[in-house]
Amino acid sequence: MQVSVLFSGGKDSSLCAILLEPFFEVELVTCSFSLLPVGEVAAETAEKLGFPHRVIEPDMGILEKAYCTIMEDGFPKNAINFIHRNVIEYLATQEGVSFIADGIRRDDRVPLLGMPEVRSIEDRFGVHYMCPLKGLGRAAVNELVKEYLLIEEDLSENILKADYETELRELIARRHGHGKIREIFPVHVQSHVIERRKKGQKITT
Amino acid sequence: MQVSVLFSGGKDSSLCAILLEPFFEVELVTCSFSLLPVGEVAAETAEKLGFPHRVIEPDMGILEKAYCTIMEDGFPKNAINFIHRNVIEYLATQEGVSFIADGIRRDDRVPLLGMPEVRSIEDRFGVHYMCPLKGLGRAAVNELVKEYLLIEEDLSENILKADYETELRELIARRHGHGKIREIFPVHVQSHVIERRKKGQKITT
Repeated sequence: MQVSVLFSGGKDSSLCAILLEPFFEVELVTCSFSLLPVGEVAAETAEKLGFPHRVIEPDMGILEKAYCTIMEDGFPKNAINFIHRNVIEYLATQEGVSFIADGIRRDDRVPLLGMPEVRSIEDRFGVHYMCPLKGLGRAAVNELVKEYLLIEEDLSENILKADYETELRELIARRHGHGKIREIFPVHVQSHVIERRKKGQKITT
Repeated sequence: MQVSVLFSGGKDSSLCAILLEPFFEVELVTCSFSLLPVGEVAAETAEKLGFPHRVIEPDMGILEKAYCTIMEDGFPKNAINFIHRNVIEYLATQEGVSFIADGIRRDDRVPLLGMPEVRSIEDRFGVHYMCPLKGLGRAAVNELVKEYLLIEEDLSENILKADYETELRELIARRHGHGKIREIFPVHVQSHVIERRKKGQKITT
């Protein structure tokens, strides 16, 4: 069975792939709207993790609609969730895709699909949508990350990550300047995976 | 890292253990109030799965209190959830237990802990509570079960399972006869694991 894991290069989507690896053929999939080289950034990290990787390029209209939503709302939640849902739907239409997974954790609020949205996607496209970290709290995820990954963490404006937020921020910056980003996005810490630890590898850093 | 997986001998708790196996030292734990030989039933299944197993015997007062609740309610949800929470708390106090897991799925309603209950248990006892199937729908779980387990399914009254419901039903039957059970419990299908399939093993049954 093959699973397509939505991949940002961060610790959650990386851990998601690692947890599924013994049971599925894992491919990592990164969404890009071509504003920034997020596909290349993710591909580099995917290689370090040892998984095949591909970039999907859904219609730019999705990012434009998310842009309109976020400018109207003044906060990112609805816009990010809109992109997430549309990217999953796009991926679900791709040939050979039957299991889709992402790194959403128990305590995550964004991106997050509601149960009716999840069931609708599964029914309409005949796919399984899985969130292997959904039943794990932040502390349990961190214990597993410590065991299997070497990561760096920094504020989101300093980390080049291949998530939806990165390109949405870029679009806003191009049109309104960097000040607007700080108005809309709460300051938060992001992670980027540097390398994968083999089981039992001594932690020296 | 060791994880204690609450184990009923059914497909969900078995799959939960299998999914955690590559990442944790798994021990299976079955709760018994000694009304029925549920510990032995579970031990037999645990051996077929290849995991160490132990039986815990929390205070009979938990089952008595659940009995009062179910007789007052006329339906099992609150009583089963009460047992589940108390069993997890009991397990959390046991020496060496730091990760507790169970086989609760995305679509399960009973047993189910609310987020405040989960966070309270994690904070008070310093444990991690994990539900690896929480982000998986029924169909995805079934695909994985098909791959890794050989199971039998039948109505709950015909399957001897080592879950909380089994002993609660027994207590009600002893005090009020079997007719009362049918009044209180909706008819539903339960599963029991017959054996474990090795990866790639041809399915011949």
